[in-house]
Amino acid sequence: MSSADNSHIECPNFETLSLSLADGIATVSLNNPDKANAMNAAMWRELQQCFEWIDSEPGARVAILAGEGRHFCAGIDITAMADFIPRHTKDQQRINEQLRLNIKRLQGNLTAIERCRKPVLAAIQGACIGGGVDMICCADMRYASRDAYFTIKEIDLALTADVGTLQRLPHLIGRGQANELALTGRRCEADEAQQLGLVNRVYDDSAQMLDEVGKLAADIAAKSPLAIRGTKEMLLYSRDHSVEDGLNYVATWNSAMLHQQEMFKAAMSKAQTPEFED
Amino acid sequence: MSSADNSHIECPNFETLSLSLADGIATVSLNNPDKANAMNAAMWRELQQCFEWIDSEPGARVAILAGEGRHFCAGIDITAMADFIPRHTKDQQRINEQLRLNIKRLQGNLTAIERCRKPVLAAIQGACIGGGVDMICCADMRYASRDAYFTIKEIDLALTADVGTLQRLPHLIGRGQANELALTGRRCEADEAQQLGLVNRVYDDSAQMLDEVGKLAADIAAKSPLAIRGTKEMLLYSRDHSVEDGLNYVATWNSAMLHQQEMFKAAMSKAQTPEFED
Amino acid sequence: MSSADNSHIECPNFETLSLSLADGIATVSLNNPDKANAMNAAMWRELQQCFEWIDSEPGARVAILAGEGRHFCAGIDITAMADFIPRHTKDQQRINEQLRLNIKRLQGNLTAIERCRKPVLAAIQGACIGGGVDMICCADMRYASRDAYFTIKEIDLALTADVGTLQRLPHLIGRGQANELALTGRRCEADEAQQLGLVNRVYDDSAQMLDEVGKLAADIAAKSPLAIRGTKEMLLYSRDHSVEDGLNYVATWNSAMLHQQEMFKAAMSKAQTPEFED
Amino acid sequence: MSSADNSHIECPNFETLSLSLADGIATVSLNNPDKANAMNAAMWRELQQCFEWIDSEPGARVAILAGEGRHFCAGIDITAMADFIPRHTKDQQRINEQLRLNIKRLQGNLTAIERCRKPVLAAIQGACIGGGVDMICCADMRYASRDAYFTIKEIDLALTADVGTLQRLPHLIGRGQANELALTGRRCEADEAQQLGLVNRVYDDSAQMLDEVGKLAADIAAKSPLAIRGTKEMLLYSRDHSVEDGLNYVATWNSAMLHQQEMFKAAMSKAQTPEFED
Amino acid sequence: MSSADNSHIECPNFETLSLSLADGIATVSLNNPDKANAMNAAMWRELQQCFEWIDSEPGARVAILAGEGRHFCAGIDITAMADFIPRHTKDQQRINEQLRLNIKRLQGNLTAIERCRKPVLAAIQGACIGGGVDMICCADMRYASRDAYFTIKEIDLALTADVGTLQRLPHLIGRGQANELALTGRRCEADEAQQLGLVNRVYDDSAQMLDEVGKLAADIAAKSPLAIRGTKEMLLYSRDHSVEDGLNYVATWNSAMLHQQEMFKAAMSKAQTPEFED
Amino acid sequence: MSSADNSHIECPNFETLSLSLADGIATVSLNNPDKANAMNAAMWRELQQCFEWIDSEPGARVAILAGEGRHFCAGIDITAMADFIPRHTKDQQRINEQLRLNIKRLQGNLTAIERCRKPVLAAIQGACIGGGVDMICCADMRYASRDAYFTIKEIDLALTADVGTLQRLPHLIGRGQANELALTGRRCEADEAQQLGLVNRVYDDSAQMLDEVGKLAADIAAKSPLAIRGTKEMLLYSRDHSVEDGLNYVATWNSAMLHQQEMFKAAMSKAQTPEFED
Repeated sequence: MSSADNSHIECPNFETLSLSLADGIATVSLNNPDKANAMNAAMWRELQQCFEWIDSEPGARVAILAGEGRHFCAGIDITAMADFIPRHTKDQQRINEQLRLNIKRLQGNLTAIERCRKPVLAAIQGACIGGGVDMICCADMRYASRDAYFTIKEIDLALTADVGTLQRLPHLIGRGQANELALTGRRCEADEAQQLGLVNRVYDDSAQMLDEVGKLAADIAAKSPLAIRGTKEMLLYSRDHSVEDGLNYVATWNSAMLHQQEMFKAAMSKAQTPEFED
Repeated sequence: MSSADNSHIECPNFETLSLSLADGIATVSLNNPDKANAMNAAMWRELQQCFEWIDSEPGARVAILAGEGRHFCAGIDITAMADFIPRHTKDQQRINEQLRLNIKRLQGNLTAIERCRKPVLAAIQGACIGGGVDMICCADMRYASRDAYFTIKEIDLALTADVGTLQRLPHLIGRGQANELALTGRRCEADEAQQLGLVNRVYDDSAQMLDEVGKLAADIAAKSPLAIRGTKEMLLYSRDHSVEDGLNYVATWNSAMLHQQEMFKAAMSKAQTPEFED
Repeated sequence: MSSADNSHIECPNFETLSLSLADGIATVSLNNPDKANAMNAAMWRELQQCFEWIDSEPGARVAILAGEGRHFCAGIDITAMADFIPRHTKDQQRINEQLRLNIKRLQGNLTAIERCRKPVLAAIQGACIGGGVDMICCADMRYASRDAYFTIKEIDLALTADVGTLQRLPHLIGRGQANELALTGRRCEADEAQQLGLVNRVYDDSAQMLDEVGKLAADIAAKSPLAIRGTKEMLLYSRDHSVEDGLNYVATWNSAMLHQQEMFKAAMSKAQTPEFED
Repeated sequence: MSSADNSHIECPNFETLSLSLADGIATVSLNNPDKANAMNAAMWRELQQCFEWIDSEPGARVAILAGEGRHFCAGIDITAMADFIPRHTKDQQRINEQLRLNIKRLQGNLTAIERCRKPVLAAIQGACIGGGVDMICCADMRYASRDAYFTIKEIDLALTADVGTLQRLPHLIGRGQANELALTGRRCEADEAQQLGLVNRVYDDSAQMLDEVGKLAADIAAKSPLAIRGTKEMLLYSRDHSVEDGLNYVATWNSAMLHQQEMFKAAMSKAQTPEFED
Repeated sequence: MSSADNSHIECPNFETLSLSLADGIATVSLNNPDKANAMNAAMWRELQQCFEWIDSEPGARVAILAGEGRHFCAGIDITAMADFIPRHTKDQQRINEQLRLNIKRLQGNLTAIERCRKPVLAAIQGACIGGGVDMICCADMRYASRDAYFTIKEIDLALTADVGTLQRLPHLIGRGQANELALTGRRCEADEAQQLGLVNRVYDDSAQMLDEVGKLAADIAAKSPLAIRGTKEMLLYSRDHSVEDGLNYVATWNSAMLHQQEMFKAAMSKAQTPEFED
Repeated sequence: MSSADNSHIECPNFETLSLSLADGIATVSLNNPDKANAMNAAMWRELQQCFEWIDSEPGARVAILAGEGRHFCAGIDITAMADFIPRHTKDQQRINEQLRLNIKRLQGNLTAIERCRKPVLAAIQGACIGGGVDMICCADMRYASRDAYFTIKEIDLALTADVGTLQRLPHLIGRGQANELALTGRRCEADEAQQLGLVNRVYDDSAQMLDEVGKLAADIAAKSPLAIRGTKEMLLYSRDHSVEDGLNYVATWNSAMLHQQEMFKAAMSKAQTPEFED
């Protein structure tokens, strides 16, 4: 049995997401195309549940985050927005305290994508707006079809974006460009997004994108999962720590995780892809 | 009265800067064109005074930083440089101590641009040299006319640049490019500057640039000032803190500053621009 | 005698490196072309010794890091890899402890390039693979011939890269691109490398590259060594500290290192290059 | 109904803990006195569940953490220790990876005490050993009866303590003393513990201690819960951040949470204790 | 003329403070004894002005911070408290924004004591309450008469203390004790304060205290001001940075400030006190 | 052969230090009693060499740092001080640059004590002055005879202490006390030093001290060296990092270093001391 045969694993069911697992690749699709995959309360919650499941399921080695229909994600569902505003008291400060906890919970919903130890590849077509941008900034790589566009919509809702874009985007595209996109809320088309570094590559259409992203995911799924997980951990750690701390951390990590046999197996098998335990 | 009608506000006068305020946009121009806007002692001091005024004036919602004449800024005025070298004693260590304080004061003069809670858009034509580069790195966005060029001149004056370029530039253009510009002091033309991410966009000439930057500023001035100020704060905070710290900070911030009514007003008024209190 | 006349200085000899010093420029070449400059135990050790020598030798003002033969560097020598795996005991945890120290020693070997107070310019042709990428990320600038290509090979050896690429690369090319290169181990050709910011410039062939990098090095060697060393220190410091810490540090630094006479000498001699003490 | 009347709230049941709630005070007791409250797998898990419940239950304003029987806590249950050692594979590196996750889970079990937004007062009699010390270091204050003693037992089990003592203890007693206790594993009696700052106060016996700690808890429960939660947040934040960051954070926090009416109510009612909403 | 003869220097006048300068010692006294030196708006503002003046006046080498009358300081003047609550708009979020700036301004008023480059010795008798504790935590050392007591009053005003105590106190007395004082608001008498490390020494009465603190100040004023300023800078820097950063910073500092002649003068004159330039 | 039988190991010889190794305990004595063990250039250099040897010698499990004769250490040898002042050029800035490197080298000499992975116990009698205080602050624990006293002498030499006291002392005794000792340079007698936390324990005389410190060292030498080294690493790491970073680091560390067999051996052998491999 191939190490990546996942036919025996049962995926959990979600109301707002579709999830499948095959050949080590978990494919998560936002699944509310009639509303352009706007994020309602259930979707926020389920995103976290879904990526925590992928994190814990050994058979899942890599994930694709996609959206059903014409648009990737229209951002937070405005009709659901009221759900996030506390109403349990009329006391302004206690409302504020609860609001802070609500925002932190929404942040945690998306951060679960980043915390998932398996790489996450976002595949984006059509609109990617507001909370959708916060979401894809948590992925490890981003790919787009030519019709994709990105908008940090929060500013046009009189909001300071608070679920991750302002923290993560500047690490992708540099601070000058991030400032402009965040302060103006203007559209950024797929080609510009690639040039800025927001997406890794642009494909002609959605079908081609999903095909190519699937190949990339398959390529990653064939590599040593232990090494892939370690690499993701180090890339994230290095974002928030000094180089010296990062070097010390990876030396400590590898003293535990460096796998001599897999290393030699990999080194020996240039011709065909070696198989690794999950 | 429109919230951005500033006709009743009197701007302070400066010796080396011209300052005007209209429709929520403060326009600051370096105003010593005969010397290519070289920065003398008065200009350093007045830049801080000017941006602290903009910070505190509710009617100012966004600022443009420009330069009169053919060149944006020739850098520090060498004839004024002697003013920054302490002469009150012959004691070398006390000179050193005072020199350190002088440098920190100059740094503070420019950091006032960054600390100004309203976004600052730099509009650059012709030469932008030495201290001029330190200055524009404190702005939130940078725009250039095609004839603009940038030089980290300090290295050719046998100086380690000490008023901000070495700290801020790498966040804009990545470290490999920043290293080269800083260690060689070579010219970087407008088109390359855009490609590197140093400027956001290049325009054919100065007139077109000022026109377009004015439109951008007007666009920002029309948005919720509260959300704009929060967004700038978060972008700056995230530069110097981990993502986790940044998320915690914005959650705390928004528990105080998220403005439900403005949010709903903004959400409802897709067709026409809503008006916000300062 | 010109300040950069180095004819009287004797360079140390190395088994795996060739080192020469002329006109203030130290040229280090990986010198095992028959094995594509694969890094064996001696080369790791000697890289540190060599750059510590350059750091301490006043006559060396700038360094070029190149590779003999068709390829810059094939990465760690797999036949030598066994040398890095501890065998002094069968006790797994003591092996782990020693392995951690071995990795830290290898990290230190490369970090010596970064710690060298003189700028290091890498000149890369042909393959630059695995440990070779870790190595060039320690340089201050990177230049390539058109046939160069880069591969973060570790992932295909079932390894989490642990000698610097994952910590330093994202500062050069942004996190989205760094993630893809590190997680897929795919080839990145010279032209793409330039576009991403991994290399500063691409030349038609190796000869032209060495010629032009030599001119750049000569340009840097002619500048004030004190200012060059200060600039490198600040660029590195700013990578790992907040802007505020960086500004305070450079003010303190320059209170000691700012050299009034050299500054005036430099300011006065626009026409011809001034000469500086080492 | 008094704001601290909790008679209507039902507490969850636990296997290894007893939990009660009265007058705003949640009392958690380790409840396996026959084994000196040694921490088995269930107790680790339930500690987290219990303190997450206290965190989320508005009626709980403060918590007491105590132990049934003669001893507070004998540390990790050695017979349960095998549960924490991964056995799902013979692959050493995958065991290591899983072991790391297990340790982080145990850490998280105890960190829940610290993350609980309500103050936690530990009341300690008899032995407090190994994991017991890790546990009480997560509390906000510590009180002891005269027969209490403390031992960082891990070192005598050939272990580097890994669930919090080495990180948190030095903040309580200074580094010189923490080093000795951690490296020798020697007993520290209650009186010395008070002198070092490990416990806040020593009482003659367990009954007196519980009585006095109960009064302290009642005193805290009578204060504004909003202010108490904010104070705990700031004390924790300041441990891990610079003073400047801490000041900025609390200014942002209080802009949301400062409660003018409660402040005036408190200021006016010096004579009798004012009542506050949860 | 002795280097510490200050008879020619004119001190600024304040409404709420008395300030004198003699023999290099600036003595600042809170001067509103009828209200137990409660801090009104003028006192907050003037504290900053006063310590900025001391910082900039070369003739002042050390400062004593005392209080006129029976009590050191009763904390913020409640009748003045309304001045700090914004009333310029009814918009809750804009009030919040302004409140945050007001708190930061009050923080800055006290931080000026810490930023003053000359050591500050607080001399405390009677009550030291609320804002008074925030204030003395900014001093470098604290001395008390036996009748002094300390209360973190904020918690009993339903407030999260926000002008420095929660950030600075734990560095003085350890976290366990700081937590208790902050969460209970209980009185801490002088003798306990000394044992905890909050004050350096307790004297029998106020007269003796002022006499002895005056001698300590005179002792400090007789030392090299350059070395004193450097020592204070390093002690503050080390609080907020790693040991490694601190070592690097002081090496850079001393390369500028180490004064060979003063060092030899000091080394040679064991018998009598040497005199130093300001 | 007992694991701690070191009779076959030859210790290096030093000019200014005596070094012996027996039963796993390396005893280092400052050995220039005629000059009260004043630190000359050789002693600085040899301290580093000695502790690097102890770090690398598996047979050494713990170290004692003592001083021959009546006094522990008189601090830097003033007659040797001139050796640290650069004289290779008259250029002030190049002198400054070299001075900075000299200070960093001296810092590194002492930091080697801290970096030594084996615990270091300082045993102090008589005078411990200036550089001697810097030195003992690098040890893990400090013990004193009753006649010992401590002076941060640098301030009386018109110096900002620059080799570690200002960075490390506040972590031992709190900031209020550290400030006073550093700014006044006053004597701190052994008993006060214990009360402040500067020394762990005071003994009646030097002989008793050495006897008891020897027993403590023997106790540590009998424990698992792997666990001892890990514990020291964590205690140091936690000083310079947040609790969260520290927890993550130790989890990663122990995933490599936790030694199941030694743990069970230790757990089983309560009665007699188990023996561990180096």
